[in-house]
Amino acid sequence: MDYDSYFDEALGLLHKERRYRVFITIERDAERFPRAVWHSDEGPRDVVVWCTNDYLGMGRHPQVIDAMVTTAQRMGAGAGGTRNIAGNSAPIVGLERALAELHRKDAALVFTSGYVSNETGIATIAKLLPDCLILSDAQNHNSMIEGVRRSGAEKVIFRHNDLEHLEDLLRQAGKTRPKLIVFESVYSMDGDVSPIHAICDLAERYGAMTYIDEVHAAGLYGARGAGYAEEVDALHRLDVIEATLAKGFGCVGGYIAARRNIIDAVRSHAHGFIFTTALPPAVAAAATASVRHLMESGEERQRHRRQVALTKGALAAAGLPVKPGPTHIVPVMVGDPERAKQASDMLLAEHSIYVQPINYPTVARGTERLRITPTPFHDAAMIEHLTDSLVAVWKALKLPFVDRAAAA
Amino acid sequence: MDYDSYFDEALGLLHKERRYRVFITIERDAERFPRAVWHSDEGPRDVVVWCTNDYLGMGRHPQVIDAMVTTAQRMGAGAGGTRNIAGNSAPIVGLERALAELHRKDAALVFTSGYVSNETGIATIAKLLPDCLILSDAQNHNSMIEGVRRSGAEKVIFRHNDLEHLEDLLRQAGKTRPKLIVFESVYSMDGDVSPIHAICDLAERYGAMTYIDEVHAAGLYGARGAGYAEEVDALHRLDVIEATLAKGFGCVGGYIAARRNIIDAVRSHAHGFIFTTALPPAVAAAATASVRHLMESGEERQRHRRQVALTKGALAAAGLPVKPGPTHIVPVMVGDPERAKQASDMLLAEHSIYVQPINYPTVARGTERLRITPTPFHDAAMIEHLTDSLVAVWKALKLPFVDRAAAA
Ligand SMILES: Cc1ncc(COP(=O)(O)O)c(C=O)c1O
Ligand SMILES: Cc1ncc(COP(=O)(O)O)c(C=O)c1O
Repeated sequence: MDYDSYFDEALGLLHKERRYRVFITIERDAERFPRAVWHSDEGPRDVVVWCTNDYLGMGRHPQVIDAMVTTAQRMGAGAGGTRNIAGNSAPIVGLERALAELHRKDAALVFTSGYVSNETGIATIAKLLPDCLILSDAQNHNSMIEGVRRSGAEKVIFRHNDLEHLEDLLRQAGKTRPKLIVFESVYSMDGDVSPIHAICDLAERYGAMTYIDEVHAAGLYGARGAGYAEEVDALHRLDVIEATLAKGFGCVGGYIAARRNIIDAVRSHAHGFIFTTALPPAVAAAATASVRHLMESGEERQRHRRQVALTKGALAAAGLPVKPGPTHIVPVMVGDPERAKQASDMLLAEHSIYVQPINYPTVARGTERLRITPTPFHDAAMIEHLTDSLVAVWKALKLPFVDRAAAA
Repeated sequence: MDYDSYFDEALGLLHKERRYRVFITIERDAERFPRAVWHSDEGPRDVVVWCTNDYLGMGRHPQVIDAMVTTAQRMGAGAGGTRNIAGNSAPIVGLERALAELHRKDAALVFTSGYVSNETGIATIAKLLPDCLILSDAQNHNSMIEGVRRSGAEKVIFRHNDLEHLEDLLRQAGKTRPKLIVFESVYSMDGDVSPIHAICDLAERYGAMTYIDEVHAAGLYGARGAGYAEEVDALHRLDVIEATLAKGFGCVGGYIAARRNIIDAVRSHAHGFIFTTALPPAVAAAATASVRHLMESGEERQRHRRQVALTKGALAAAGLPVKPGPTHIVPVMVGDPERAKQASDMLLAEHSIYVQPINYPTVARGTERLRITPTPFHDAAMIEHLTDSLVAVWKALKLPFVDRAAAA
């Protein structure tokens, strides 16, 4: 048997379709965030990272680092076991308490990642509901799709943010069948948001449970950083809120928050939770520090909004094709995988700017883009440099400007 | 719709079957490992942890903690993104290099956990092999079972470590069909080992690929800590080696090591790898320090073996029903879920010893047990105290001794 040929073939296809990905190696620098060192083929080089998902720079926050450092020194590097067997550390219990408080729910449950929390959270909840029908937004993240699949439950997909379609499907399912509506608050590639209240209205009318992914909103929106549901005052209307500790909170891990019996049932039945080592105490302590800080302080969110607005304004004024939207995500559209990659390569090599191209399968073919994520730490000079560099790259690659006059 | 009733019912059933789990909250103490503080209802209390999967105590190793601390200080708490988007840190690249070296493979790929590495590793590899048949050991861990399921490939289960059965199934599958044999080296609940060479012989004879889980062996066995395959000199015969960074290496995370094209194909296709935030640089640096230390130093392994042998000897001499086996895992059989729980509760409350009971579904009903894991840091006094305490509990609960004379 020539097994190698199968793997070689799969890789060959990626190369042929220009979808083969090369990872950029970087060294983050807590003191100079969002600057980092890029390990290029010619040696180390200073760059500005413009595509981080550490949206608020909380990964470099002194209190967060300090919590990680002192807890590692006191308790060691790892948890030492699963939650049930020797791994239920005091810091992870404290983290779950903070997350429940944040989202104003009875309880929360921490997983090794946001990916795992969706995958095993959705699967477990749907399995516990006999004959459950899952109603899933067409743009849901891969981790949610895997959770839906793994549940084994019947699923229907509603068109992205399409309330009429969702209502049709709910009506068809009937009032007595258990139904779970699965959707996101902020969709990460377009930066658009879902109509949370309207979805909750439908859920109430047709007797459905709601499960929302706040991965790109937790920490960032709401008066206490509880996410978009807090921003629009809908926390109390949602049954299950899922999010990550790796983006707005700058650490790693994921969680769900919900009523006590839901959390307890997931805790007791979810394989992806039960049969895996718990997050290290040091990570849990760092995440707790981040969550608690952002519950008190609105400064990071304010400055974030301001720098996002400045970035969007500067790019739009330069005639760059920014996709408009109400959130912190700034998609600059290219529409071709090859040229998105070239633009990214040029930005890095010639302008010391790191923005990864986003190609299929992360976004639909024909909508390839650069996805720019300003943080509170991207200052005016950086925004200017980004704008000038993008304009230079757009010209060099003969990419279309929205308003050629502005970019002349 | 009364959704609460479904969750309440599921929980009620667990209570009724006495399978409802209560987690013990502990605070690890790097300086006094394996001692820890138990957060009991009556306040904090000193205990000795006898059920950690930080088998060698590497989680408290000063070099490991130091790597975590200094990297967190330099680079911050989190990775800031997926591997493809801003999260490919220099430390995680270095970790993969160390792991490839350790297992004498071309390359390695790090996942957020051992669970995810199995789940997404097995699924992705099997999907890349057209019409693949998976041959899976009956005792494989839940994460492997989920990987097999998720692959969508046809699977057959061979009786645990049964070479004849495996050969029958391989013969029936025929030589030309892609086949993947999935098994563990050290099975964690019984502490028995698989016949690695004999399985590789069959794989060669029938043209199958091999995938081995070394989660409970990596760091612990082999001259350089590469696992049981190194112990029996079979590293070069295995196609894919999977393990965790959370047990022998004392941190968190998981990985596979294999030929370059296998790793590259999994890197490029595995959803559970692509769509999730990378491990923090600080965790990667800590794990690298642990792996590299254990590649050089045999001291921890030697002392581990000695303390395991002493523990097994002491418990057996006291007439306690230790299940014999060639590894570091010391199962003390109870055979009843209720009494296993009682024994564990008494050990904790009356003897300040923390050993979790292992009940269904982790082990088969009727084989409930205490699973004891001595580390290099469990000294003679602790072993004596454990032995005396177990004897006292066995007597109090009227559990059977193997040799009543010895325990009189
Ligand atoms: C919407 C959404 N949900 C979940 C995740 C997974 O979260 P994590 O990175 O913590 O695994 C991501 C991306 O990483 C995401 O974009
Ligand atoms: C055999 C086996 N494989 C994989 C895992 C999962 O590893 P991790 O804890 O790193 O998720 C475990 C237990 O945790 C295990 O026992």
